[in-house]
Amino acid sequence: MPGNTFGNIFKVTTFGESHGEAMGAVIDGCPAGLEISICDIEKELARRRPGKEYGSRDEQDTPEFLSGVFEGKTLGSPIAVVVRNENQNSKDYDELKDIYRPGHADFTWDAKYGFRDHRGGGRSSGRETLCRVAAGAIAKKFLAVYGIEINAKAITDANIEELKKEGDSQGGIISCIVKGVPAGLGEPVFDKLDARLAAAMLSIGACKGIEFGAGFKAAGMKGSENNDAPSVEGGGKFASNNSGGILGGISTGQEIIFNVAIKPAPSISKPQKAYAKDGSVKEISVKGRHDACIVPRAVPVVEAMAAIVLADFLLLSRASRV
Amino acid sequence: MPGNTFGNIFKVTTFGESHGEAMGAVIDGCPAGLEISICDIEKELARRRPGKEYGSRDEQDTPEFLSGVFEGKTLGSPIAVVVRNENQNSKDYDELKDIYRPGHADFTWDAKYGFRDHRGGGRSSGRETLCRVAAGAIAKKFLAVYGIEINAKAITDANIEELKKEGDSQGGIISCIVKGVPAGLGEPVFDKLDARLAAAMLSIGACKGIEFGAGFKAAGMKGSENNDAPSVEGGGKFASNNSGGILGGISTGQEIIFNVAIKPAPSISKPQKAYAKDGSVKEISVKGRHDACIVPRAVPVVEAMAAIVLADFLLLSRASRV
Amino acid sequence: MPGNTFGNIFKVTTFGESHGEAMGAVIDGCPAGLEISICDIEKELARRRPGKEYGSRDEQDTPEFLSGVFEGKTLGSPIAVVVRNENQNSKDYDELKDIYRPGHADFTWDAKYGFRDHRGGGRSSGRETLCRVAAGAIAKKFLAVYGIEINAKAITDANIEELKKEGDSQGGIISCIVKGVPAGLGEPVFDKLDARLAAAMLSIGACKGIEFGAGFKAAGMKGSENNDAPSVEGGGKFASNNSGGILGGISTGQEIIFNVAIKPAPSISKPQKAYAKDGSVKEISVKGRHDACIVPRAVPVVEAMAAIVLADFLLLSRASRV
Amino acid sequence: MPGNTFGNIFKVTTFGESHGEAMGAVIDGCPAGLEISICDIEKELARRRPGKEYGSRDEQDTPEFLSGVFEGKTLGSPIAVVVRNENQNSKDYDELKDIYRPGHADFTWDAKYGFRDHRGGGRSSGRETLCRVAAGAIAKKFLAVYGIEINAKAITDANIEELKKEGDSQGGIISCIVKGVPAGLGEPVFDKLDARLAAAMLSIGACKGIEFGAGFKAAGMKGSENNDAPSVEGGGKFASNNSGGILGGISTGQEIIFNVAIKPAPSISKPQKAYAKDGSVKEISVKGRHDACIVPRAVPVVEAMAAIVLADFLLLSRASRV
Repeated sequence: MPGNTFGNIFKVTTFGESHGEAMGAVIDGCPAGLEISICDIEKELARRRPGKEYGSRDEQDTPEFLSGVFEGKTLGSPIAVVVRNENQNSKDYDELKDIYRPGHADFTWDAKYGFRDHRGGGRSSGRETLCRVAAGAIAKKFLAVYGIEINAKAITDANIEELKKEGDSQGGIISCIVKGVPAGLGEPVFDKLDARLAAAMLSIGACKGIEFGAGFKAAGMKGSENNDAPSVEGGGKFASNNSGGILGGISTGQEIIFNVAIKPAPSISKPQKAYAKDGSVKEISVKGRHDACIVPRAVPVVEAMAAIVLADFLLLSRASRV
Repeated sequence: MPGNTFGNIFKVTTFGESHGEAMGAVIDGCPAGLEISICDIEKELARRRPGKEYGSRDEQDTPEFLSGVFEGKTLGSPIAVVVRNENQNSKDYDELKDIYRPGHADFTWDAKYGFRDHRGGGRSSGRETLCRVAAGAIAKKFLAVYGIEINAKAITDANIEELKKEGDSQGGIISCIVKGVPAGLGEPVFDKLDARLAAAMLSIGACKGIEFGAGFKAAGMKGSENNDAPSVEGGGKFASNNSGGILGGISTGQEIIFNVAIKPAPSISKPQKAYAKDGSVKEISVKGRHDACIVPRAVPVVEAMAAIVLADFLLLSRASRV
Repeated sequence: MPGNTFGNIFKVTTFGESHGEAMGAVIDGCPAGLEISICDIEKELARRRPGKEYGSRDEQDTPEFLSGVFEGKTLGSPIAVVVRNENQNSKDYDELKDIYRPGHADFTWDAKYGFRDHRGGGRSSGRETLCRVAAGAIAKKFLAVYGIEINAKAITDANIEELKKEGDSQGGIISCIVKGVPAGLGEPVFDKLDARLAAAMLSIGACKGIEFGAGFKAAGMKGSENNDAPSVEGGGKFASNNSGGILGGISTGQEIIFNVAIKPAPSISKPQKAYAKDGSVKEISVKGRHDACIVPRAVPVVEAMAAIVLADFLLLSRASRV
Repeated sequence: MPGNTFGNIFKVTTFGESHGEAMGAVIDGCPAGLEISICDIEKELARRRPGKEYGSRDEQDTPEFLSGVFEGKTLGSPIAVVVRNENQNSKDYDELKDIYRPGHADFTWDAKYGFRDHRGGGRSSGRETLCRVAAGAIAKKFLAVYGIEINAKAITDANIEELKKEGDSQGGIISCIVKGVPAGLGEPVFDKLDARLAAAMLSIGACKGIEFGAGFKAAGMKGSENNDAPSVEGGGKFASNNSGGILGGISTGQEIIFNVAIKPAPSISKPQKAYAKDGSVKEISVKGRHDACIVPRAVPVVEAMAAIVLADFLLLSRASRV
């Protein structure tokens, strides 16, 4: 099963290499009759685009619908969105053709396929997340109809100016809260809501971990502390949300809360040692236009993936009962 | 897509409620010609069974092959393994029929299906993991042919005697290392090796988080620290393994390393408040035979799920090149 | 993707070899709250069992639920049904161990897996259809809630007594009509209703063809003849049903009509030539207890597969619109 | 599961409406390292394009790779191919906006989605098959590496000039032969090779039936006639191919042979009665540029779908044995 499709009913397939012709997403299974415009996509893509202060590749990222939308509404047929690649400086990568950049997928891609597009990381570039954001914009529109809202924020202690001077980069945490999710979403036992969200987040290249609710802290807690007790006012409310809004893989109706760990971008201009294709060790300085801190740009990506998961489960939940 | 199947080629479907007739797993896609005996299953199931000191339900858990194995070898057809349920004390649960135990899936299950088997948690019981261990035993046999070995261990600071006296429970961390994985496993961009492992682990009921390599610590690191540099001896070796053996969702050939957070078992005899089906708040003490610390018993479950994921990717990797 | 699972939401996985321990089916995705009893399964299995006049293996085929049903209703969790194999005469097959019976899957199975259970055809035995009938019984119960009813009948010109005397067998046609299907079921463009029904029917071992509505006759018709015109009384009714109740892969609301071609059972006692494993040609007479005409026994199998397909599409159709 | 993806490993997703911006296909799972050029696609698309004598819509159908191909070889990442729509006469369809053309999917699409793109049939147009031909061209290149070749031909008794004068259309049979398929392809029991080919063919809009080998004739044959006997020269050869090259759902190594029934195109200018959206009956004459006989144009579509199925099974077969 090749890995470029995500979801069961609300199903997203993406394609595109960083320095190829275009990036794109095909969203199949979006219900018919949803109001959508290209502006909905543009708005989310803009959130992913770097500010000038980051100094990274400046693309307009102009999306176009190729199918699936008619007279401002979804048809029920697959929605194709593409963004042409522009402003590539492929030559920046010529000297890296036979070098495996540390922290990048250069070596593993070669090991798997025996062949790769070395320009800008090819398919393993962070630019691939653009397609997720486009698809997520549609999922968000669908969720909004049901009152579901997703908000993520970046937590970093990066001093951008300092990092740029050093030619280094910095990681961070993204914390995400989903409001308005009804109780009952999730498909036990393997497609638990948290299992699918974890897959969604770890499929983001820079993500190295995820935790729900109390998360890793729960490992140090007692059952009597970790169990969420009814709040004093009752009425189905709880005094805490250590579960992160998910029990047994199914949403509780509380807010869904999770944190993801984002590693520092591996592309740094600071000189470092790297393996070359022939096994020798070289000293390199990664050129190109790279972010010192990608965490803020990953925020809409996290939201998009969460939206895709929730849209899928919302549709699946329609089949739970006779 | 109902959630009781996991995997693409090496594909596991499980069934069974805690106090129903039997628990079982159907393993489809295991290649033909693998030597296997029922002892291979028994050995792993024994690791999951509680010691006497835990005081939990004492079952023999005797597995039986119903299909797929002939003259000591796999046929290529689906392998069905079942374990009859015995020694259930369903009456322990009578008084909990209309109460939603804190930290359990009782409420969410009702919210989703409008109906549930309340005896011992039904399908949401930890007893369901028995099926995973049985399937994982077969995956491990397959991986062993290729020299891949999985070892997990529990890290807890539980004082069992103290906890039992208090009628409380304790969580912990499970740390897992996989040796012998060749470079090149994983299916970008959505079915990254870490994404599938994360789904596998978070599908375990008590798991609340996962991190690979440096994990959440990576969020506080600089790129120059987090990137794994060639070791001084060279030869394709590295000075560190912050990546946890996975880059761009594909195995690097280093050890795969991840930690999972296990929450404390929610069933405690210590009195706690809980919502009843009618919305009122009751005080309950969860009877039945429960573990004060489930972490050690979850170790073979973590290994089993890792084995299922790796067996699947090993088979998928055969299709990467012309 | 190993092939022992069928369906997307209403998802059936089967297992079992003819002379192994048991045959079984796991039905995942059946909605919660459906009334079902083991008698519903038994009733359909009885229709598949041979009459005495056929002289074939006489098994009671006693089904047992292992999971998924509680207090007479489906839980939403996977329903496992098993039937123990009894009354096998494995010795009948000893001399066929190294011979590839003509018209059987003996050779192809060996070619694929390099190994097979030769007793009674192993997994490729017609006995495997028992699991489909069990799963189909549940699908039928679900469809009945929505007023959908499936009726197939056998069309053969077999003279059983004559055939038995000759030690030969006979094929036939099964014609199937589905009533009560609402307009709108089917998932274009690849999962058209007719495409899925065709896959379902051709997955039955003895089936060699399928046609919908006018079928192969449509190949000789003009558009003006084949297009179904409004009937004179109007009201959404049609003067003909050449489409077989499906247009563009979606149900029209008319009856769904299709025919399948069933080949004669390949097991005949009349002497015939066959290849042996070593490439030589032997004369064999297939012993064991075989049907002279399997067509009547395939009728409930056709109905079962149609029911599984329709149950799946009925659930999928809930996700078509916002 | 929305229906716009086909295949398991070699996996094709298509998109596009007849009068929308573009038609396209994303081919995921094509192994890395396959030599491919846009000419390979163009060549096959040209076979699907109508000759002048048919008088249908004349498009250049110029394909473009957006991703997945680098330096003339496949990367292992998804290959996106798009063809811009040009030369649409959407106005031809204005008066059909609220009429359900007989034999078309107009009514069923509305019944399913409550909304449709009426221009040229939208997503249900035969133009959708262009994407299949593009994807099939890649599958054919892959199969050629393994010596597998697919040839279909049209069998019709159409008198085109006569039909055009009458404003009518004609159906036909397409007969397909696949050479060079090794024994052992197919995934029993549900993903039999014939089951998947049947699904592939019936997913083509105009297809109403399929038969393998002796097909419907087998229904009238005796076992002793239908079983393929060793040929007199032996050596694994057979005296007949009634099985159509498939036994038990697995290829035998003989030629794979099947016929499909193609109905006459429903768009005819000859006046006919049709239901309007409001339930009334109107007389219509379908304008636009339509083929009197689509059968020859469906030939490369049949080949393409067969190629996609075989490429998928060839890759799957790599996982059959330890």
